[in-house]
Amino acid sequence: MATTATNRRVILKEYVEGYPREEHMELLPGGEVPLRLKGDEPAGSVLVKNLYLSCDPYMRPKMSRPLRESYTAAFVPGSVITGYGVARVLDSTHPGLAAGDLVWGLTGWEDYSLVTPPATKFLVKITHHGDPAGEGQRPVPLSYYTGILGMTGLTAYVGFHEICEPKKGETVFVSAASGAVGQLVGQFAKIAGCYVVGSAGSKEKVELLKNKFGFDDAFNYKEEPDLAAALRRCFPEGIDIYFENVGGAMLDAVLLNMRVHGRIAVCGLISQYNLADGERDAVRNLAAVISKRLRLQGFIEPDHKHLYPQYEAWVLPYIRDGTLAYVEDVAHGLESAPKALIGLFHGRNVGKQLVRVADDESE
Amino acid sequence: MATTATNRRVILKEYVEGYPREEHMELLPGGEVPLRLKGDEPAGSVLVKNLYLSCDPYMRPKMSRPLRESYTAAFVPGSVITGYGVARVLDSTHPGLAAGDLVWGLTGWEDYSLVTPPATKFLVKITHHGDPAGEGQRPVPLSYYTGILGMTGLTAYVGFHEICEPKKGETVFVSAASGAVGQLVGQFAKIAGCYVVGSAGSKEKVELLKNKFGFDDAFNYKEEPDLAAALRRCFPEGIDIYFENVGGAMLDAVLLNMRVHGRIAVCGLISQYNLADGERDAVRNLAAVISKRLRLQGFIEPDHKHLYPQYEAWVLPYIRDGTLAYVEDVAHGLESAPKALIGLFHGRNVGKQLVRVADDESE
Repeated sequence: MATTATNRRVILKEYVEGYPREEHMELLPGGEVPLRLKGDEPAGSVLVKNLYLSCDPYMRPKMSRPLRESYTAAFVPGSVITGYGVARVLDSTHPGLAAGDLVWGLTGWEDYSLVTPPATKFLVKITHHGDPAGEGQRPVPLSYYTGILGMTGLTAYVGFHEICEPKKGETVFVSAASGAVGQLVGQFAKIAGCYVVGSAGSKEKVELLKNKFGFDDAFNYKEEPDLAAALRRCFPEGIDIYFENVGGAMLDAVLLNMRVHGRIAVCGLISQYNLADGERDAVRNLAAVISKRLRLQGFIEPDHKHLYPQYEAWVLPYIRDGTLAYVEDVAHGLESAPKALIGLFHGRNVGKQLVRVADDESE
Repeated sequence: MATTATNRRVILKEYVEGYPREEHMELLPGGEVPLRLKGDEPAGSVLVKNLYLSCDPYMRPKMSRPLRESYTAAFVPGSVITGYGVARVLDSTHPGLAAGDLVWGLTGWEDYSLVTPPATKFLVKITHHGDPAGEGQRPVPLSYYTGILGMTGLTAYVGFHEICEPKKGETVFVSAASGAVGQLVGQFAKIAGCYVVGSAGSKEKVELLKNKFGFDDAFNYKEEPDLAAALRRCFPEGIDIYFENVGGAMLDAVLLNMRVHGRIAVCGLISQYNLADGERDAVRNLAAVISKRLRLQGFIEPDHKHLYPQYEAWVLPYIRDGTLAYVEDVAHGLESAPKALIGLFHGRNVGKQLVRVADDESE
């Protein structure tokens, strides 16, 4: 077995204003890196081979010059882009991880990553994948740990179950509903006995929502001249729970259609990430927050990491028995990662966008 | 004793657009009304003589044509304006109220009001007022039941203690801080061991905040060209709790200055009540709700009526021992009520705006 390998890397070339373009990023051919720890790394380091990388909307604010509010530090021009992924451990001085282990968590957009403390706390050992538990059960693909079994899944679970506190029979609206988080929230809402409607940006996605993910109804927001009227049509009695992924005009329309004591989990504002401060959509209907006694609650997944084992135990049976459908949009090769990420902001992905970086010889 | 009296009434003449003006209301001379129930009223009715009326910002949305979102039904042109007040019961078939009792609650802008079920559920019998409990204790004026001991006080208590969940040492910002609710929230925050800053619209009010109500700091928002910078100066470490009374540009500036896991109690949006739908200030910084995991919670006092006895028991000792300062702005005579109400929206009041309608012969 080789002791070194070529490590290609995707770097941010410069801070982004407006929509990100491929020229904002660059794939560097990279040099040879050792496939074992050299011994001079910080104690607890983990050397991994990246197998899958996740493309997530939250990465966009990190590409802006860091005066913009963001809950994670901005990327540094010239440095490798970081994000969630699935990887094979090649070498480790971390007490909980050994060579050969599979992990999901924060890694780099490169072939091989050295993960050092404290970032190693975001690595989670993968114990369930591949062959299913029993007959008639579906296998759990490794790539799912970039999504339904990773950060995306925990985001949907925490946002819906912890933040929205759904009750059976309540009405739920999900925006960006065919996306990585939205498709899960809609299905979790059905499991919880709610009536759920989703919005998406194409006919194809609306069909997916209704026919694959089991939403009770769905609409294409691009074909609705009046979003408030579309919501009134779908929810004549109003909305109890809004799972917010987009922001802007949709939020304003939702505020007019919420029911008394409604809850809004603010998960993402993808419609706003590429706008400059002065350009961002105005929200003008906040008076509804008082008149309807609404709760808007922002959240991010890292605050709720401790719920992952509970979530994984809850969701695995639904994956294995086919209750949950899950759609991935897989780009192939590290070189395709920038384009895949950019596509999110134009709605080009159908389902969870991820990048397959390498074959795992052990698979 | 007379068996009838003249009942003057203040009616809404027409729906209001923009700022309310005196000509939107009218004082009708009125006719003779009996001072006893006639017997044909619904069971449980209460006839009262109004002593004090409260002018509150929430009354403005009720003056608009009712397509606008409001948590209470709109006023009806030609009908008497309703609002909170303090009154003497003249006659009653309500099991909990008898002639001679003093009450606070929903009544009419007139000399005498017939309160019928279900509105009678908003009448609360006044049991503490006048002479204090012991030596060195201050008396509790009856007018306080339009404010600190009425709806205003319960609003401040619920909003601060139930919605904001303050912890000792946290930082608190209150807008419209010298107003009826704001002056109480600031003082409740000091009692809770918080650092509290208020904003108001004149030098005189800023002085009141610092010297009478014990705010740690205060600023005149009209003299601050950059509200976000003013907040940064007052809260270099950020704001844990924002008690929102105004909305618009102030909310946008606050969002930029909140700390992680901050709470915003949305009590009122007085800056927005006189604006048409298209004119309302844009809130553009909602991205902070995610990055800082903020909770915005709207609330109204009627949902929390059951907490009134708990609140009254908590607040009375602080009033009697002088811990709490309380400033009222008293207009005299029913005829002055429209102007007093209008003044709220121009910041003309200093402290709680109320109207003294009549002397209470029993006082």
